[in-house]
Parts: sequence; structure tokens; C-alpha cells
Amino acid sequence: MSEFDIDQTKFLKDVNYPVDLRKLNLMDLRGLADEVREYLIDTISKIGGHLGASLGVCELTLALHYVFNTPEDKIIWDVGHQGYIHKILTGRKEALKRIRQKDGISGFLKRSESEYDVFGAGHATTSISAALGIATARDFLKKKYKVIAVIGDGSMTGGMAYEAMNNIGLLKKDIIVVLNDNKMSIAPNVWSLQNYFNELMTNDTYNKFRSKVWELTDVLDKKTSDRLRKVAARIEGGVKGVVTPGMLFEALGFRYFGPVNGHNVVNLVKMFEELNKMSGPLLLHIITDKGKGPSYAVEHPQKIHALNPFDKLTGIELKKSEIPTYTKVFGQALVELAKKDEKIVAVNAAMPDGTGLNYMQKEIPERYFDVGIAEQHAVTFCSGLATEGFTPVAAIYSTFLQRAFDQIIHDAALQKLPVVFVLDRGGLVGSDGATHHGVFDLTYMRLIPGMVLMAPKDERELRNMLYTATQYKRGPIAIRYPRGNVEGVELGEFESIEIGKSEVVRDGKDMAILAIGNMVNYSMKAAEILEKENMDVHVVNARFVKPLDREMLFEVFGKFEKVLTVEDNTIIGGFGSAVSEFASQHGFKNDILIHGIPDRFIDHAKPEELHQQLRIDAQGISEVALEFMNRKVHHA
Amino acid sequence: MSEFDIDQTKFLKDVNYPVDLRKLNLMDLRGLADEVREYLIDTISKIGGHLGASLGVCELTLALHYVFNTPEDKIIWDVGHQGYIHKILTGRKEALKRIRQKDGISGFLKRSESEYDVFGAGHATTSISAALGIATARDFLKKKYKVIAVIGDGSMTGGMAYEAMNNIGLLKKDIIVVLNDNKMSIAPNVWSLQNYFNELMTNDTYNKFRSKVWELTDVLDKKTSDRLRKVAARIEGGVKGVVTPGMLFEALGFRYFGPVNGHNVVNLVKMFEELNKMSGPLLLHIITDKGKGPSYAVEHPQKIHALNPFDKLTGIELKKSEIPTYTKVFGQALVELAKKDEKIVAVNAAMPDGTGLNYMQKEIPERYFDVGIAEQHAVTFCSGLATEGFTPVAAIYSTFLQRAFDQIIHDAALQKLPVVFVLDRGGLVGSDGATHHGVFDLTYMRLIPGMVLMAPKDERELRNMLYTATQYKRGPIAIRYPRGNVEGVELGEFESIEIGKSEVVRDGKDMAILAIGNMVNYSMKAAEILEKENMDVHVVNARFVKPLDREMLFEVFGKFEKVLTVEDNTIIGGFGSAVSEFASQHGFKNDILIHGIPDRFIDHAKPEELHQQLRIDAQGISEVALEFMNRKVHHA
Repeated sequence: MSEFDIDQTKFLKDVNYPVDLRKLNLMDLRGLADEVREYLIDTISKIGGHLGASLGVCELTLALHYVFNTPEDKIIWDVGHQGYIHKILTGRKEALKRIRQKDGISGFLKRSESEYDVFGAGHATTSISAALGIATARDFLKKKYKVIAVIGDGSMTGGMAYEAMNNIGLLKKDIIVVLNDNKMSIAPNVWSLQNYFNELMTNDTYNKFRSKVWELTDVLDKKTSDRLRKVAARIEGGVKGVVTPGMLFEALGFRYFGPVNGHNVVNLVKMFEELNKMSGPLLLHIITDKGKGPSYAVEHPQKIHALNPFDKLTGIELKKSEIPTYTKVFGQALVELAKKDEKIVAVNAAMPDGTGLNYMQKEIPERYFDVGIAEQHAVTFCSGLATEGFTPVAAIYSTFLQRAFDQIIHDAALQKLPVVFVLDRGGLVGSDGATHHGVFDLTYMRLIPGMVLMAPKDERELRNMLYTATQYKRGPIAIRYPRGNVEGVELGEFESIEIGKSEVVRDGKDMAILAIGNMVNYSMKAAEILEKENMDVHVVNARFVKPLDREMLFEVFGKFEKVLTVEDNTIIGGFGSAVSEFASQHGFKNDILIHGIPDRFIDHAKPEELHQQLRIDAQGISEVALEFMNRKVHHA
Repeated sequence: MSEFDIDQTKFLKDVNYPVDLRKLNLMDLRGLADEVREYLIDTISKIGGHLGASLGVCELTLALHYVFNTPEDKIIWDVGHQGYIHKILTGRKEALKRIRQKDGISGFLKRSESEYDVFGAGHATTSISAALGIATARDFLKKKYKVIAVIGDGSMTGGMAYEAMNNIGLLKKDIIVVLNDNKMSIAPNVWSLQNYFNELMTNDTYNKFRSKVWELTDVLDKKTSDRLRKVAARIEGGVKGVVTPGMLFEALGFRYFGPVNGHNVVNLVKMFEELNKMSGPLLLHIITDKGKGPSYAVEHPQKIHALNPFDKLTGIELKKSEIPTYTKVFGQALVELAKKDEKIVAVNAAMPDGTGLNYMQKEIPERYFDVGIAEQHAVTFCSGLATEGFTPVAAIYSTFLQRAFDQIIHDAALQKLPVVFVLDRGGLVGSDGATHHGVFDLTYMRLIPGMVLMAPKDERELRNMLYTATQYKRGPIAIRYPRGNVEGVELGEFESIEIGKSEVVRDGKDMAILAIGNMVNYSMKAAEILEKENMDVHVVNARFVKPLDREMLFEVFGKFEKVLTVEDNTIIGGFGSAVSEFASQHGFKNDILIHGIPDRFIDHAKPEELHQQLRIDAQGISEVALEFMNRKVHHA
């Protein structure tokens, strides 16, 4: 297939900002939609990125920017990886070619990137709350602009959407919520309403019945008072609700419109023009196909959620890695363990593929649960299961488990319930950037009383830690590991690891490096570099952030004046901080340096680029160790 | 009024466990309800405690334990301060007299206390998730017991309830949810559905219309297929939904029953007997009066949410403290500031009285928002407001803000939005116990990049910190202070505090104590005690946990070999940990001891009792300082 050339397009070549878009005839939007979609596929096929979500909202994005006076009118997107077309239309057409690359634009919405990015988005289910804040501010300032929140059906499974809609219903603010219903979000069948809706829409007899009810309300309208007409309208709303998710939204105080075809751009424009004239809380329900466009995308929408570079005709990834990921090793190990222990139950929040629970889903579906984008519920659901003797394994990305922080404390830990937390994407996740890095977990999990917190140095240790965790049963226990490929070691049989026991991976005499998780192998390589500098470094694989290995620490503090800790977690309150606390509490006056992620938000780039930049790769660690070796200490 | 004597009661004297209750005739439950209520009021009037919630569920609690075979059948309560009558009926009648006291029973549900306390409860909105976990376990084990979750309308404003109901609707588990609707939760009017419902129920014409629709469905039932009858039933559900919250629950896959009078114990029993025979997700909506019983309680239900000892005839508190609380000082200061700065907006999560925002609510209602028990939404709503130039003040208890941990990171901090977080009930809250202590906040707020985190030593400093925070505008900023009475200092005019600047409150030469918040005054008193031991202690009011005062730390580490940090936060990752990290990162080899809350959950008792027990009162700090002075240090 030939190179895509914007200059050869009919419409897209002249569209850089919404103001250009609005110069087009309504009917030309169809042609533009095709061109935009083609440009998006062409670009992302070369560099990789989230594709499906944006393909699904192509017409929606055009219609919104065509009708509404952005950026004065405010569009608030949810999650943000549906924002690629929004970016193309708001000054970032060229920049798309470096999306999610180092120093390129973000894969999500980002306020500092454009005035059209009204509110940052990365995690799900924030858009309606943010929209209410913005609409409230608007009304205080007596301004007139429109506020539109776009949210997917997946995000609608998150409780925060309900909290926000309830609040909007009370405050009766002028807000348009667009429910982009692609019937699946990241994984299908997690929204109760969706099933209900699908079942009824396919029922022909419903329509006959509906007309009967409508006739009745017509008769009544003529006969009765204004008050009764109002009630009738509500009842009509209720009746409509039976066959659409409208029921839920009407209950919360919204006027519900739809469902309408989200790929008919002309109709969408007309619909938005109508909504633009109305006031109060409005909800428009549109139906879209995630991945609309290429046949492979429509057929396998989950597969194109996030992609490496791929062939744009077939959708086949160009360089499929042969090396398995930690995710896969976990997912397969869990199936092995669950086959032997029927008390093991797996729970995830709308991420079966991302977490590796797709293996459980396929092989032991009856003990696999996807609760939707509902991390809070996931953790308390697990806690409930644990009270009855089960061993729930909650597999949730490090960054998303932040959503359930209170439930981990209040429901799992306080009651000493044996919930196994599996935190994938610990550390720097790469191109998803600041919203998605899992760099706080060693701190927020460590502060919880009774929590056991582990991080494996390789895939074999991951398996053994998972085995250990499912056997533990004395309270909550967590395993945290990075995104990406494993080290490539032999897996071996499952072996139990003693709780709180570290391992010395290299003997040395000049300095001790205490490393955790994937920083162990970097530290080993750093030790090799340092050998050439005549520095003989002792390296410990800490394994446990909590409880710490007291025996090892007494020995290390006794032997080594200089102790360097290395982690891919914030240096605030994490592993190194734990070691420093330990020294303080036990009266050790060693020279300790805490090395890890600095106390600021980290932008996107490849993990290896970030490791280099932050000096937590082998070279960086060796440099830090050398500087540390030579630093002067102060004595009081 | 004479002393209440259980031995003189007709029914209560023989009721210690549900099995005793079930021996009574149905009609006798009315008499028992009166006796139980009287016993509860009599007991709580002497010792204080949550009263209103339990009075409201008196008949419900009797009916549940009468019909269901507890503890085999599982009742899961929400929040838990509605559990007093449950405790009376499940072996803790005598123990009620020491509820919330040191070594007495908990004011909330607690698994370790009784097999009838199926799942711990303290924070709101957890019961449905836990119930689903338990019901799922039951089905795996092929057991037949019933699972009943009781949840208030207040908790229903929390998104987690929706997440859980959505999941139940999908899994179609046999669960009974009892919605205890007292039309207010802790504060009224935060539930959109509630308003909707009230408006329609008062409308007489609705009933006429309703019968018409019913007639129509009757006709159709006879004429049409099974399929159509099913649809008709759903439409009837939809129609019912218009006038009850049923709409929401039906949408999520529940069968809805109600509303019924929650104080008619005989009817409740009959209702539960029917529900006991049914399967699938069922929701029973009952209407109760919070504080049912004494007239003062029904008239001022918010006032009796939690009480000190009171006169049981009038409801007037016996020893009303004359000294204002930090809560009151904050609430009044915010009004003062908001009157001068119209960009200040106050947001709380269903706690106007508890947070002191009742002053804003009364004086500047248009800039006061109660979003319901919806901390996640509260924070993102504030972030939205902040994007438009407002200064939102989110006043949320330390323990409840844990619910919004991710939103603080992802929506406020990452975008550097100037949201002011006001964390009341930091530290040990006393009789509410382990679920409510605010002992993690210095850690979970400190780890967030860009966060400014302060704690005042007294009410004057609180006012100045609030003033500073509302002026700050460069990003998120937090103030954390304890429950309870202020120090009694002059308030003075508002003065700005330099960000990151500590103050020396006592000059000394033998040891430095770095204290934060209300630990400053304890430390000052400890210094006086130590003076008698010939120890001359330097005391610093740190003021800021983040950023730390570098200049002060360089000076202190240069001057004092021994540095003791004192905080009423966990010693894991908190203030002392920050000081220890600072020493490590800057190569100071001083002897540091981190003193604070140990790394375990702390039971309930009065704050002063807990401070004494954990040695963070004046005496305790002085002892710790003396031991620290004499401890040996290890050198590598």
C-alpha cells in the first residue's frame, strides 16, 4: 500500500483546527471522516498506539467540533485514548506521528499540551465529575459556554460516574453527557444495563406494545391537567427506560436521548444542534463500533485496544516479541495453581488481557470475575470471598489499584483477610506516561499495617511469590512487577519463599546495594560495570518491601558503611525509605542513599529511555554508586 | 426518670440471642421493639454514642433476626453505627454499656467481636460488595444460606454501591439488599433519586394514571404471548420506577419491592418471609425515621448522629464543652476568607456538621456543595472547578479521603490544580476506633509529587495555614488537624506562612525534637518534664511535612547528634520517615528516632488514653526522649 499523503486528501489537508472544520459543508464531513480514519490508521500502523477507541469516535469527534464552538465550549473526554482524532483536529495533525514517543505528544488528553484538552484524562470515569466542576464555575462566572462530557460504556461501570451523575441531577446544571456505547469498553459484558438493553432491543413485540402505551398517554394528555401531562411524560420516560439505559439516567435526573448511530456524522451534527439549544442535564446515547474501519479491527476489537506497529491491511503486528511478558507468566501460573486449589478465584477490573487473567477466563471461567472498571468494588468483593475461606487474587494494574486504596485498608487489611493483590505495571510503564506509571505502590501498600509486599527479580521468582501468596492465608499479601518482557530464566517447579527473606545475589566488600524487583538485575549489571572501576559491590535481592529482612539488614549495616537502595518507585516512603527508617529505628549510623524515581511526575517515553534518564538502568546505577562512594558525610 | 432495669422488662430480659427472639410471638415484637429502644436510649444517654441510626433500624433489626436464621444466614451491615440493636440481640446486651469505651465493644461491626458480625463496617458503602463476595463463595460451596445487605440511602450516594449492584445484576446471585431510607443519611438532600421520588409520591393524579396503565397490561397479558408478558412485566417495572427508586435498581437487574414502612415490625416480618422464598437479586426499600422514638431525635436527626452523654428526656447534652473544636475554627475561618474572596468554594462529602462546613452552608450557601458520600467525585469536581480559576476547599475527614487517593494524584496533583484539601480527624480519633483513625494521611499525601502538606500546632496556625492555602494557587495543598478541642490561643489576624518554613518553639542543646501538628504542644510539655531530668531539649514546630524546611534541617543536623521526630501518623513513610530520608539523601549521620503510631491497627479508646498508651503524650514523649538519649548506636 502506498504512503498516505495528507496533501493529496480532499478535505483533511486544509483542516488543522476546528475553525477549519466548520468551513466545510455538512455533507463533506463524511469524506473527511474517511480521510481522518485513513490518516490515523496509516500513522498508528507505523508507530503503534491505541487505535480502536479513536476509530470508534471518528464521526463523534468531527460532529462535536463542528457544532460546538471549541475551545470556548468545553469537551471533556474520558480515559483519553479515544482522543487521537481530537488531537488531529486541534492543531496536532503532524504531532500525531510522534504520539507516545519520547518528547512527542501524550497518548492521552493533557492540559499543558493544548487549550482544547480541557481536562487531563488517563484513568477512567473522571469526565463527568470534571464537567460538573467546570459547569459550576461557568455558572458562577455567568458565562454561557457549553460543557460536554464524553464517556464510554466501560467507564460507566465505574462508580464515580454514578456519583457525578447523581450530583448533576441534584444541581440541575446545563451539561451534555455523550455516552459512547461500543458495547464493550476494553472487555465485553461488564455492564448490567448493556445486557438488559440488548435483550430487549431484539424483541419485536416490544414495539407494538410501546405504541399502545403511547396511545394511552395521548388520550390522557388531552383529558387531564398540566400536572398529569408532566407525570405522563415521566411515565413515558420510564417506559422508554425499559428498553434503553435511559432508565438509569432518567432516575438520576437526566433527559435521555438515543440510542443513535454514532457513525452517521450528519445525523450526529443535527442531534448536537438540537441539544445545543436545550438546557439542564442531557444524555445522548450513541452506538459505535470500536475499531470502526478496518475489518480486523471490528472483528477483534479487544486486540486493537493498544498496538505495536502493525500491517495496516491485515492488522498483524510487525514485530511480535517472542519473549513472554510478566503478565503472561503470571496468568499461566495462576491457572496452574488454580487447577490444584479450587479455593483460588481470580478477579479483575475490565482488564482480562492486560492482567493476564485471560488464561483463567479461558480455562477456568467459573472462577474468573471481571467486575467492570470498579476497583473499589473489586477489592471489597474479594474481601467478602475471603471471609468464606476463598483465596481471591485481585489482578489490577498498580496505577489503577490506587482507586481502591481505602478498601485495601478498611476491608482487606483491617480484617486480616487473605486477599492476594497482583499489581502489574509496577514502575515506569513507558508510553502511557504520567497517568499510568506505577511508581507509588511500594509506598501506598507499605504503609498498610499487616500487608506483605513483594517484588520479584525475574519470572521464576514471580511464580514462586504467587505460589507463596496463595498459600499464605494470614492476611493481605501483594506482588508487584513491571510491564514488559521477562528475564528469560528457567521457570522450574513452584517453591515457597520464606516471608521476609531476602537473597544475596552477589558477594562484595566495598558497598552494599539493596535492590528490589527488576532493579536487581540492573544492579547486578551495575556491579559488573563497577568491577572495572575496582569497586567490589555486594548486591542483595530484597524480595520483600514489607516485612523487611531484619537479619539481612543487621548483617549489611554491620558490614558495609555505604548502603545504596535501588527501586523503580518514588523515593518518598518506598523501599529505600523503609531501609532508612530501619536504620533510624535500630540506631545504625551507616551512610545510606535512596535511589529511585524522583519526587515528580514522569512523562512518557520507552521504559528503557526513562530508566536511562532517571539513572536506574545498569549504567545509571553504577554512576550513582560511584558518586555515592565518594560523597562526604556530615557528622553532628 | 428512674433507672432502666432489664429485669423488669417483659420481653427483653429473656432475649440474648436471635434464637431467644424467635421464640416470641410475632405480635410481641412490637413490645420488644419499645423495650429495646428504651434500653438503647437509656444506655447511650449515659455514655454517649451513635444513637439515631440504630433507633431508625430497631424494627428492621428485630425482623431480620426473627425471620432469618442468623448467624448461618448472613446479615451484612453498612457503615455499622446502625448496629447497636444488632449487638443487643446478638449476645452483647450487657456489653453495650461499654460500647466505644477503652476495652469495651466497638461502635461498629467487627468480625473479631462476634460471629454475627459477618463483615466489618465503618466506612460507608461496602456492604453490597461484601455481600456479593459472600454469596459467590456460598454458591461455590453449594451452601444454601441467605445473604442480606443492609444499606442506607446515604451510602447509596457512594459509587461503590452502584459498582456492586451492577455486578450483582450481571451475576444474578441470590442476594437481598435492604435499602434503609431515612431520607437523609447524615445530611439531607444529597441523593438525586430521593428528590425525584418525594416529588412524585405526593402527586395524587399519579395513582389514577397508574391504574390505567395496569389495566392496559392486564388486557395485553391475556392477548399476547409469553414473551410479551415478560416485556409487560418489565414495563410495569419501568412504570413503577417512575415513582420509586425502583427504576435505578431495576435497571441494574434487581427486583424492586417497596417502599414499605420500616417501623411496622409485623409487616416487615411478613415481607422478609416472602423474600426468603424468592431468588435472584432482590431489593426491599423501607422508609424509616432516623432517631425514631424521642421527639428531639426525630426533630433534629442530624444532631443525634453521634452524641456525648445526654438527658434522655430532652436530648440535651450533659457536659457541652465550652472550648471550640478545630472543626469549628476551620469552618468559621473559611467563611471569613470566603467573604473576602469570591473564588473560594467549599465542597464536602455528606458531612457538613462534622467538617465545619455548616458555617459556609448557612452563610454562603451558593458556594457550598455537599456531593453525597462520594469522595472520588468530590475531588475531581474540585479539580474541574480549579481549572476555571476557583479555589475549591475540599473538607473531608482524613480517613475518608483515602477513598479519593487516586483522584488526588491523577486529577488534582498531576495537573497542578490549586485544590485545598482540609483533612479533619487526622491522628487518633478516639472512640470510633480502627476504621476511623486518620493515621495514614501524612504518608499517603506526602508521596504525591507537588503536594504541599501542613499540620498546625494550634488553632491560630490552622487559620493562618488556611489563609496561606487559599492564597497559594500553584497546585494542591493540604492541611491536616486532629479531632477535638483547640489549644485556647488568641486567633489574631490572618497571616501568611512561608511555604516550607518551620519555627523553633524552644531552644535547647541536648537533643532536637521535630514535632508536627498537635504533637508540638505535647513535645513542649515533654521538654518541661525533661528539664527536671536535666535534659535541655530543642523543639521545632515543623509545620510542613512537605516540603520540609531544608535550612532548619541542615541546622538541626549540624547542631544535634540526636534528633527525635514526633507525629500522630504511622511511623511508616510519614513525617519522621521524611526526616530520615532527608538525612540519608544529604549524608547526615545523626542518630534519628522516628516516634509515632506503630505499624498496626489501633483499637478505640479516648484520644488521651491512646496517646498515653502509644507514648505520644507529654509523659510518653519525655520517656521516649530519655531512652533515645541513652541508646547506643551501631557503627559499621
